[in-house]
Amino acid sequence: MRLVIVGGVAAGTKAASRARRLDPGMEITVYQEEPEPSISECGLPYFLSGIVENRERLVARTPEKFAQKDIDVLVRHRVEKIDASAKKLIVHDLNAGKTFEDAYDRLVVATGARAALPPIPGVDLEGVLELRFLTDADRIRSYVEKYSPEKATIVGGGYIGLEVAENLCGLGMEVSLIEGEDRVALDYGPEVSEKVEAELASHGVNIFTGEKVDVFTGEGCVRGVKFGGTELATDLVIVGVGIKPNVELVSEAGAEIGTTGAILVDKHMKTSIPDVWAAGDCVETTDLTSGEPAWVPLGDTANQMGRVAGTNVATGEDTLEFTGTLGTGIFKVFDLGVGKTGLSERAAADAGFETASASLSAYDRAGYYPGAQRVFLKLIADRATGRLLGAEAAGSSSDKLIDICATALWGRLSYPDLVNIDLAYAPPYGPALSPVIQAATILSGEFERAKEGVRATE
Amino acid sequence: MRLVIVGGVAAGTKAASRARRLDPGMEITVYQEEPEPSISECGLPYFLSGIVENRERLVARTPEKFAQKDIDVLVRHRVEKIDASAKKLIVHDLNAGKTFEDAYDRLVVATGARAALPPIPGVDLEGVLELRFLTDADRIRSYVEKYSPEKATIVGGGYIGLEVAENLCGLGMEVSLIEGEDRVALDYGPEVSEKVEAELASHGVNIFTGEKVDVFTGEGCVRGVKFGGTELATDLVIVGVGIKPNVELVSEAGAEIGTTGAILVDKHMKTSIPDVWAAGDCVETTDLTSGEPAWVPLGDTANQMGRVAGTNVATGEDTLEFTGTLGTGIFKVFDLGVGKTGLSERAAADAGFETASASLSAYDRAGYYPGAQRVFLKLIADRATGRLLGAEAAGSSSDKLIDICATALWGRLSYPDLVNIDLAYAPPYGPALSPVIQAATILSGEFERAKEGVRATE
Repeated sequence: MRLVIVGGVAAGTKAASRARRLDPGMEITVYQEEPEPSISECGLPYFLSGIVENRERLVARTPEKFAQKDIDVLVRHRVEKIDASAKKLIVHDLNAGKTFEDAYDRLVVATGARAALPPIPGVDLEGVLELRFLTDADRIRSYVEKYSPEKATIVGGGYIGLEVAENLCGLGMEVSLIEGEDRVALDYGPEVSEKVEAELASHGVNIFTGEKVDVFTGEGCVRGVKFGGTELATDLVIVGVGIKPNVELVSEAGAEIGTTGAILVDKHMKTSIPDVWAAGDCVETTDLTSGEPAWVPLGDTANQMGRVAGTNVATGEDTLEFTGTLGTGIFKVFDLGVGKTGLSERAAADAGFETASASLSAYDRAGYYPGAQRVFLKLIADRATGRLLGAEAAGSSSDKLIDICATALWGRLSYPDLVNIDLAYAPPYGPALSPVIQAATILSGEFERAKEGVRATE
Repeated sequence: MRLVIVGGVAAGTKAASRARRLDPGMEITVYQEEPEPSISECGLPYFLSGIVENRERLVARTPEKFAQKDIDVLVRHRVEKIDASAKKLIVHDLNAGKTFEDAYDRLVVATGARAALPPIPGVDLEGVLELRFLTDADRIRSYVEKYSPEKATIVGGGYIGLEVAENLCGLGMEVSLIEGEDRVALDYGPEVSEKVEAELASHGVNIFTGEKVDVFTGEGCVRGVKFGGTELATDLVIVGVGIKPNVELVSEAGAEIGTTGAILVDKHMKTSIPDVWAAGDCVETTDLTSGEPAWVPLGDTANQMGRVAGTNVATGEDTLEFTGTLGTGIFKVFDLGVGKTGLSERAAADAGFETASASLSAYDRAGYYPGAQRVFLKLIADRATGRLLGAEAAGSSSDKLIDICATALWGRLSYPDLVNIDLAYAPPYGPALSPVIQAATILSGEFERAKEGVRATE
């Protein structure tokens, strides 16, 4: 039995390892276009600034390590074509510059996603860079070493743009951030965006929201960014305006693509092509809160999907399921931790929910305990049923609060369940009642008042 | 309508505030024996060492503050008798030294718990102290100021004993800890006890387990502790061998007492006496994991019960419910955070479960991110159904991991639910897969192997 896996980052390598564990006799080959497999892509912003010093630490496992488990990882190999009826592949060896044919019994597609570079004039200038792969990070570091840029511009105010902003500031650059919409961190409500912008500003980042870049200027190297009638001098541009799934390979092989533009798979990670599974940033999944198709390209989710795909491809049966995600995410921007799970108010409205919400600013530990800091928390519930739909947090311990809420969403809990929930309390770790409990209690008052309002008008 | 509340710490004051909010016209009096109401008792260990410097910060609300909300808080008033048929009380004013009668329409009993001082000879010596109330903390601080003790002995290796150990070390004392059982932190499994003992030892605490104190020696002030044939010189003793609920007042009034020895209440916090509710450390509740009666005297739970009692006493109806607890708890001992939720393996066995468990040592963030530290996590599941029964954690981020597991228990999730749960990941906040997910995955392997074992023997 020959298993071929296309793509060797999170989902691909996880699927390979899992398949090997379940089936010691399987022949397993992983093709990876980039020169290193098993990269921790989420760590790349911290490698730019040297917060993560050791490049090797970002490579979770080398081809040599995989070889010890009898997994053949071929890097700098691009799979160019899948012939699903013949179960064959055309593979291009980028080192040797030659193309060869391979065959599979079962196939896992883990082709990931790529940065979506916008068609802005000047985007090809030297110094206009993106950050998706370790090779991108190497390129940025080389550029910084060679030209010692003093002014950097980041295009895009999402996760990557915000993390890169922090890390370029850490290198001593004067950083500007340009976002096309009217605020950064659009997956969140406006209160969180405001806190993120305040955090950026307090660290000297110049923020331009509601601005679209018209052109990057310069000769050879980038020297400026023009937008809205002004020109900003810059020595380096990092574009982080989004990514898109790599679906062309399987799409051309006849696989169905979902409404989000990512590969359609069932909950066993099977594509519409027999004997072809897919996992990771290239596939569509389900948002468990709304029940709608969703594309959530995140490393942890890719890992979990990879485990399911690897199990099922090894057994050849529908052994494990991956039912969907909550869109849980977190990022750090300077000293502010910002996280979310489930639906924002806007996403909930888009999904047809009428919502109630409660926000508060609470302490992260007992107010009298040294070092107590504030954290913002918002809970969003379904007005009709009381079910928790989402949560957003910004500030100290936001990772904990979001994980509590994600677990509550996972268990489909409602706000009354959270009023008396038994969480861990001691003065160094939280206020007597967790901010989650406090917010649920406020929400419960909100529902009571609404009920009284109805009663009063009846 | 006159509401009287007996006891003004967490549950009593919460009930008062909640009743006032719901019923602006109610007459509300709180009797409190100690000189201050609304004390954060969990903060007391940190007041000993000066980590919490400001004594006033431990008093969440003064009688003057309550007066602003038209709640009459009478401190240094001990309620000595309840005549439930006449709805009358005998109250002793400790300042004036006189006794008077009061009447109620509705009554909330929040008499809390008291330290259980063991009948050891010499326990009455000066310098043999306990830590339950703010007045106890004052007494310890005065003693320390007056005699500058160099050697301190703590009797009891539970939460309080461990927290006090840290704080007396912080004052520069040489600290010994004596525990009657064979290990400290008995609510936890042996792995956690071992970590706690190692943490104590690494900070110079002398630990004596499996030892019972025979006698405290000295004349006037304590000078030694005798146990197991040896005598330890000591200048100060803090006894923390447990607490017991204050039930005598309502018991004598005819209220039923539960099997745990605490006051029996229904889920609306009603006692067996008409128009008498009870809440906080004096009442029995239900362990939601085992379904058994439980006595869990903790500040956060008392707060939640107080809210339920205060609501129901104000409406006179069964408006809110408090269904029970998970026994979630956390404490800090030096640099180690230790938490639990649900049942330990021993408690699960006592409750009749056959268990499966998985333990691991994981990083608290991405391994390559600076400052990554280890955390121990154990998950305990029901062998028959896979339902999560409990979790224990020790180390960095244990508060987060325990709160995730507590929420999972609250939602009655099973280990397979935790394998693909969507938690928040970014390198500064966790490893790609949360230790909870990692442990659930190990547990799932454990269940798979057991199934294969059954199949193999069939």
